Amino acid sequence: MPPRPASAPQVPVMAAAAQLLRGAARAARAPPALARRALGSAPPPGVPATRGGPRWALAGALGGLGLGLGLWRRRAAMAAGEEEEDEEEERLRRRFMAPPVSGLRELRRRRRELRSRMELLIMETQAEVCRALAAVDPGAAFAVDTWERKEGGGGISCVLQDGDVFEKAGVNVSVVFGQLSEEAARQMRSRGKTLKASADGKLPFCAMGVSSVIHPKNPHVPTMHFNYRYFEIEEADGTKQWWFGGGTDLTPTYLNEEDAVHFHKTLKEACDKHDPKLYPKYKKWCDDYFFIKHRGERRGIGGIFFDDLDSPSKEEVFQFVQSCAKAIVPCYIPIVKKHCHDAFTPEEKQWQQLRRGRYVEFNLVYDRGTKFGLLTPGSRIESILMSLPLTARWEYMHTPPESSREAEILEVLRNPKDWVH
Amino acid sequence: MPPRPASAPQVPVMAAAAQLLRGAARAARAPPALARRALGSAPPPGVPATRGGPRWALAGALGGLGLGLGLWRRRAAMAAGEEEEDEEEERLRRRFMAPPVSGLRELRRRRRELRSRMELLIMETQAEVCRALAAVDPGAAFAVDTWERKEGGGGISCVLQDGDVFEKAGVNVSVVFGQLSEEAARQMRSRGKTLKASADGKLPFCAMGVSSVIHPKNPHVPTMHFNYRYFEIEEADGTKQWWFGGGTDLTPTYLNEEDAVHFHKTLKEACDKHDPKLYPKYKKWCDDYFFIKHRGERRGIGGIFFDDLDSPSKEEVFQFVQSCAKAIVPCYIPIVKKHCHDAFTPEEKQWQQLRRGRYVEFNLVYDRGTKFGLLTPGSRIESILMSLPLTARWEYMHTPPESSREAEILEVLRNPKDWVH
Repeated sequence: MPPRPASAPQVPVMAAAAQLLRGAARAARAPPALARRALGSAPPPGVPATRGGPRWALAGALGGLGLGLGLWRRRAAMAAGEEEEDEEEERLRRRFMAPPVSGLRELRRRRRELRSRMELLIMETQAEVCRALAAVDPGAAFAVDTWERKEGGGGISCVLQDGDVFEKAGVNVSVVFGQLSEEAARQMRSRGKTLKASADGKLPFCAMGVSSVIHPKNPHVPTMHFNYRYFEIEEADGTKQWWFGGGTDLTPTYLNEEDAVHFHKTLKEACDKHDPKLYPKYKKWCDDYFFIKHRGERRGIGGIFFDDLDSPSKEEVFQFVQSCAKAIVPCYIPIVKKHCHDAFTPEEKQWQQLRRGRYVEFNLVYDRGTKFGLLTPGSRIESILMSLPLTARWEYMHTPPESSREAEILEVLRNPKDWVH
Repeated sequence: MPPRPASAPQVPVMAAAAQLLRGAARAARAPPALARRALGSAPPPGVPATRGGPRWALAGALGGLGLGLGLWRRRAAMAAGEEEEDEEEERLRRRFMAPPVSGLRELRRRRRELRSRMELLIMETQAEVCRALAAVDPGAAFAVDTWERKEGGGGISCVLQDGDVFEKAGVNVSVVFGQLSEEAARQMRSRGKTLKASADGKLPFCAMGVSSVIHPKNPHVPTMHFNYRYFEIEEADGTKQWWFGGGTDLTPTYLNEEDAVHFHKTLKEACDKHDPKLYPKYKKWCDDYFFIKHRGERRGIGGIFFDDLDSPSKEEVFQFVQSCAKAIVPCYIPIVKKHCHDAFTPEEKQWQQLRRGRYVEFNLVYDRGTKFGLLTPGSRIESILMSLPLTARWEYMHTPPESSREAEILEVLRNPKDWVH
């Protein structure tokens, strides 16, 4: 399969939103004090109930709820009536980083629709990843920002900055809907889609996704990126077009073959459950997509990447995406745990900073999602650029010595390897 | 005058080369030992003849000559015969950072042609700026790299990195020629140029320029960028189209009104010698061009910027460009001298790093020269990206407190001011 540039790999729905729509998204940031108060007396599942202790910072991760809790409680009260529903709501309320964009009542009403199930999956993925990150960096807390989009929808950005383990870790959810812009429709048609607009040119759409970039401090812990997204467009005759896209990829500063094998193997297992052809195809697509052309090297050691996925069936693709999402924590967190206390030299830190520079180059020059987001008025810039590292470095004519560990990773970035046979 | 995107503002001829041509430019880097040996016994004019002392590092700035000196001497010997020419050659040899791309013999042969005079001007400007920078950062030395372009021409990149005063200072000259690519011709036509190609579609061209970005260490010393470039295209009927472009602009971390006025006033004086209408026009063009759209702010406090300048006459425009080039050192170096020993806090350094991040965003996302360079195979990437700072920083949702000095500069970046009345 030839490499196909994806519509919005970096911050999927933000980018999609940017691509599709105009108008400013209102950013509402929970003040830190609020974010720390969080959830009342009960800590979220898996978090020790020790208030004030460092681990309680994890509850801070759910602090964004503080922002919408009043509204949320009123909505919940209106929707209540059945004990079972109350329990489910309570479970989700404690589990998610903030109330879902569509509201739990609405999600419950159309619970059989795929877009409701996908919204729950991206919320679940965001919470699961944030929880796992907070568990390995217990001194740090996520800032949780909920924001709305004037034309429809909104998002939840969770960002941990300058922790002990993570330099910057962002996990973003967005759910946007409205009318597809002409520019977006043109782009999609150029990718081979046939979109029949109504007489007035309108094409209602809905786009949602979860995306994340995790930049650790220790140069022996790799950077990780993932995003999973879903798109629906309603044509003039009522037909719905839909597709999924996404991927998970790793960017180490130094090569550790064991880690590379673990990462790819975990992704391959997730793919293989659905079709043994998927992993090789999406592994290659990933190597092709994350290519820094002007450097002749890839951003990292890859993973999986796919877009415009609309077969064999909506249900089967959703199940596949769910498997990929469930693989994020097991493919990455063991690597973080293994290396987050590794000793490192100032020279190794400096090499990490130079590689961070390359990360910035890829994201700002090539990543179509980021570029579209930046160039389109009204997108939430801070959610798009949370993918950039806290710090980066550019040295003129830097070339690592032959046979060094720096040269070793460059070789792999220039000539991608098969990590799983 | 409406804002017009320029073809190659950042690293002019590299960018032009990238835009116009394909094929790899061979980079030949002078080894540091050679760069330090430099010029024999006589220091360049203006440099104290104290060998081995810290000021002698300035001679290292001319060390690139070591690279081509043998060839240069042979060429010189062949061309010699007249004592006067020997003397001129000796003077230029000691003055320039490296032998000119076209060779002195060739430049002498066609000394009345504007492109020869422009090549001498950009060589002179490079040397003058490097000399001035080295004089304020005497412990640092320039790496001087000469490189060739397979299809015709080449360049000289001078880069000072991690000095006492400058974090990274690059001054790049390039002179390229050959056949205009179809893509480049299409771009130029879209900017309103009528280019009549011959039956086989060929359009011989010549492009040259000097460009520079200076990133100082001290957050109270602003970053400065300039570039001046000249373009010639020969049409099928033998007509030559030509134009000049360029500009000089300042990017402070903190606002210092006195500096801003000095900078703009010096540029205004250079412009006013030719036409009082020039400065206001090119000041506005500069504010419009260096706009980081997704942030709603300019990269810096501006200066002047122009492109496609082809009237009133070739001679008059050249004289104007020469005045602009001569204004670079007086508009910037006094500001460096004034502030390079200013005390600063870690917080001020951090704000500088955040502003460096915005510089990277502008250069990688918007600057057409940089983008074209990066996306075109065969361009010399290290010369294009020497414009990036040594280090940069991105914080999620960073907002300076109201009425702070950080908020003060942001206000000016959002609403450009008239500095000279």
